[in-house]
Amino acid sequence: MNLKEKIRQQATEAKQAAGHLARCGTQVKNNALLAMADALGKQSDFLIEENAKDLSAVREKGLSGPLLERLTLSSKRISEMAKGMREVAALPDPVGEILGMTRRPNGMQVGQMRVPIGVIGIIYESRPNVTADTAALCIKSGNAVILRGGSEAIFSNKAIASILESVGKESGLPPHSVTFIETTDRQAIFELLALSDLIDLIIPRGGEGLIRTVVENSRIPVMKHDKGITHTFVDASADMEMAQKIVLNAKTQRPATCNALETLLVDREIAPVFLPILSKQLQEAGVQIRGCPDTFKLLEHVALATEEDWKTEYLDLILAIKIVDGIENAMAHIAKYGSAHSEAIITNDHSHAMRFLNEVDASAVFINASTRLNDGYELGLGAEMGISTSRIHARGPMGLEALTCNKFIIMGEGQVREG
Amino acid sequence: MNLKEKIRQQATEAKQAAGHLARCGTQVKNNALLAMADALGKQSDFLIEENAKDLSAVREKGLSGPLLERLTLSSKRISEMAKGMREVAALPDPVGEILGMTRRPNGMQVGQMRVPIGVIGIIYESRPNVTADTAALCIKSGNAVILRGGSEAIFSNKAIASILESVGKESGLPPHSVTFIETTDRQAIFELLALSDLIDLIIPRGGEGLIRTVVENSRIPVMKHDKGITHTFVDASADMEMAQKIVLNAKTQRPATCNALETLLVDREIAPVFLPILSKQLQEAGVQIRGCPDTFKLLEHVALATEEDWKTEYLDLILAIKIVDGIENAMAHIAKYGSAHSEAIITNDHSHAMRFLNEVDASAVFINASTRLNDGYELGLGAEMGISTSRIHARGPMGLEALTCNKFIIMGEGQVREG
Repeated sequence: MNLKEKIRQQATEAKQAAGHLARCGTQVKNNALLAMADALGKQSDFLIEENAKDLSAVREKGLSGPLLERLTLSSKRISEMAKGMREVAALPDPVGEILGMTRRPNGMQVGQMRVPIGVIGIIYESRPNVTADTAALCIKSGNAVILRGGSEAIFSNKAIASILESVGKESGLPPHSVTFIETTDRQAIFELLALSDLIDLIIPRGGEGLIRTVVENSRIPVMKHDKGITHTFVDASADMEMAQKIVLNAKTQRPATCNALETLLVDREIAPVFLPILSKQLQEAGVQIRGCPDTFKLLEHVALATEEDWKTEYLDLILAIKIVDGIENAMAHIAKYGSAHSEAIITNDHSHAMRFLNEVDASAVFINASTRLNDGYELGLGAEMGISTSRIHARGPMGLEALTCNKFIIMGEGQVREG
Repeated sequence: MNLKEKIRQQATEAKQAAGHLARCGTQVKNNALLAMADALGKQSDFLIEENAKDLSAVREKGLSGPLLERLTLSSKRISEMAKGMREVAALPDPVGEILGMTRRPNGMQVGQMRVPIGVIGIIYESRPNVTADTAALCIKSGNAVILRGGSEAIFSNKAIASILESVGKESGLPPHSVTFIETTDRQAIFELLALSDLIDLIIPRGGEGLIRTVVENSRIPVMKHDKGITHTFVDASADMEMAQKIVLNAKTQRPATCNALETLLVDREIAPVFLPILSKQLQEAGVQIRGCPDTFKLLEHVALATEEDWKTEYLDLILAIKIVDGIENAMAHIAKYGSAHSEAIITNDHSHAMRFLNEVDASAVFINASTRLNDGYELGLGAEMGISTSRIHARGPMGLEALTCNKFIIMGEGQVREG
């Protein structure tokens, strides 16, 4: 069997599994997730051994630092992975939820029922924990999952997936509910992306290059996660202490994330008072500032920002600052340069708060809070499959509900279509 | 400017319009729709003149019958089109709806707000009323729309769109809220489908060929409408009179539609009593029957069904009938041959009703009602942009809500991300 045939066969088996998994009871799914979590913990030594093969291969290629760190499975990381699976087991089952039923004039009752999407393909890089995290969310939401991890973590991913597959089967999940693509041949990605008759949704998890490859080659709907050029606008009416606290958190708490602050917009009215204090705090936290000409004049130790800075996702301890003339100006800057990911206003003016909330286009819009809170756990989804920047199906953090769709349900007493 | 540049420019202008339209008040949108409806009525003569050019071109090509009929704009059809626009104006505005807000442990309030998708491209064939119907739904839901109709209706579509465009502008809608692609060059479709940076969603409306072309060539998410291989299962416990009424309606009320019945499944227990009466009624209504071997033995004037019949969407007064051994057997047949469009059970057994409702995979699942009711108006959506057979974003009849997405909204008092 060649690669194309092999991948098609695996997807066909996954589709069969999906039909059964959609009707699987909550208890069966939860027990399987708990058993998987236990098995990951018990087989820590095996997982660490397999992970060592990946680490030495990566080291031989001369890689080190953050990549190596992200790739490493320690027993702490393995128990975190297991804990994540147990948390998903504890979440309410989204499948079968009925979203209201209303009675039509002809007497029939009409509602919608949440059902699984079917087969979900996850194409990911680096961190082996994605294998367990995403499989747990797919199983809980009644979807069969096909996992295609990066070659740098192939031994780790294969080891994790083999545990999930075998424990799943023992726990009564339909066979092939979890499918792992074992080959590191990159062609496998393209074969998967062509199978629109078998796979219902593709979720890429990784860097810009991977996401672009997936979006450009997929015949299957893709929920994608783009970069975040994230703004916070400090309005003239802002509580300055609150604004300082939020800006520092948004920029420095974890600067390499998509919801970290990249460009700060400050109302001209309060800039002379607010910015000198803030810049001192930022500089103490190791943040380099690149300011617009007005900011450059106002502050010391600041570089002059270029047009390029407004378009840049630094993912680093660098902050662009622009002084603006009021909310209109701030929202225009966000509309022009933002990536519609996470946007915040700090204000005590109610009409400004409401305008920002209603008019700013982003996956999450914040009043008086840090953009770092754009996260499935923080927003109460209980778990997260990345943050969608798509404008259809799901936008913002994707929890279990984002892995379902709705079917219409109709209960009648003999109603027919007239005229 | 060549075609590629021209289409890109039009889409760029539509995207600019979308930014403004998203913030347009309900009153402005409603007034524009009402003014458009009035203008269509007042310019009936112009529309009928332009339509005559399409009709004569089509007649010259030797076409006649249903295609010609569907293409014809009469003053009755024009007032129906205008009435449709007024009905959309009367619907509640979906934009800005807040879907519940809950308080997180840290005190911030989190909810979701319905917002427009952005720019929607409609690629359609034949009936010129689609121009007005789809534009109305897009405008009401705050989306800019790019219309690309078929060459056979080019004069009619251009005339309708020119009225919508000019009246829209006069009524205060942002310029380019409605864009019509004037060329009949088929390449324009491919140029549109490539503009994933400018167009957010593509909705094809037309035959299988058009939909396939769009799905296979689009870099933009597509909400598609596939064929309906629709079943009704008459359970042993069914009220036979109700079952007859529903089956006759589902098959004969408008057989050329996707939600019309194609294969009837009857429980073996009641087949000998039920089928002879039903087949007489069906035959009186002009329906040809193709039966499984058991049906063939039981009934007169029936052809023997082949494997192909179970896979066929007749869209005609032909019905395939299969006698099955209970609900399990019926659901297995539906899972194997159905197209997940519209599926019904006629039963008085509660556990059978609930199993069918929960387990059958379709855009709409009916208990004791005709599948012909799978329709936006009948299910209470107030209007309809086709029936989606996609499994993401929207499934079943698409109303105004299907043309929106949700953004997360967060109201805080200084909350930041910890740990």
